[in-house]
Amino acid sequence: MTTPKYYWDDMDVGFTARTGGKTVTKDEIVKFASVYDPQPFHLDEEAAKDSILGGLCASGWHSCAIAMRLVVDDVYPEMAPLGSPGIEEVRWRRPLYAGETVKVALEVTDRRASKKRPDMGLTRFFWTMTNEKDDTIMTCDCWVMFARRPETQEEKGAA
Amino acid sequence: MTTPKYYWDDMDVGFTARTGGKTVTKDEIVKFASVYDPQPFHLDEEAAKDSILGGLCASGWHSCAIAMRLVVDDVYPEMAPLGSPGIEEVRWRRPLYAGETVKVALEVTDRRASKKRPDMGLTRFFWTMTNEKDDTIMTCDCWVMFARRPETQEEKGAA
Repeated sequence: MTTPKYYWDDMDVGFTARTGGKTVTKDEIVKFASVYDPQPFHLDEEAAKDSILGGLCASGWHSCAIAMRLVVDDVYPEMAPLGSPGIEEVRWRRPLYAGETVKVALEVTDRRASKKRPDMGLTRFFWTMTNEKDDTIMTCDCWVMFARRPETQEEKGAA
Repeated sequence: MTTPKYYWDDMDVGFTARTGGKTVTKDEIVKFASVYDPQPFHLDEEAAKDSILGGLCASGWHSCAIAMRLVVDDVYPEMAPLGSPGIEEVRWRRPLYAGETVKVALEVTDRRASKKRPDMGLTRFFWTMTNEKDDTIMTCDCWVMFARRPETQEEKGAA
């Protein structure tokens, strides 16, 4: 692994990042839903029009997965993420319809060093997924584990 | 749509349901991760062994999506779900490794009628995903919207 630009130590509360955009197609929405969330409003345009969602829209889990991919592609290459213990909250603020182009803004809202593992820290992010009109589609409040900067660990070890 | 067995009105706090099991393959894990979460520990067995996750394991979002499919297949056919406004919490308690067979137990923990829509109510579920040894893989605390029993609405309208 190449040396990351941002270790856990380098991301204070208030640190921000953003991804590029991705246009979500009807085919993708139907394909994801066929495998993971085959409810009528994610599969069938006519059924979706009659639903309270108002039209064919992505599974909420699909929105989460799309956001994750944007973050992995555009934000994580400069970091050293080690996985996540969980999610504090997801809000699907409005449906994600076919043809919309979404992007994610991230902000660090909290952080803590790991008690068990001196080589690791936890960072709390607030993700906001918006469309091309800047309507908020989804927010996600989550913790991610990151590697700590090696020299910090040595200093602590030597102290 | 056929008449559901359980409307919102029929699911009190304490109502439970459970899904059948599904075996998660390495191919599925890698396929999902390739599209939505291409981090080394979800794609490559060798990289995964060196990670804190200890072996190739599903993206947390994949675990959520697998749980959703089990619920849609085995629990929702008797209900009238209308979508979800969001998730209160997800905990990825331990990695979901290739070859494990998972199932989901659901329990209703809260409920409220919709203020805006008399034909709808919200139900809060706690999902517990376990493997074949009953180890807890994931929990998910989420709200789902359901249709209300039509005769209840008429009674309320007439009152």
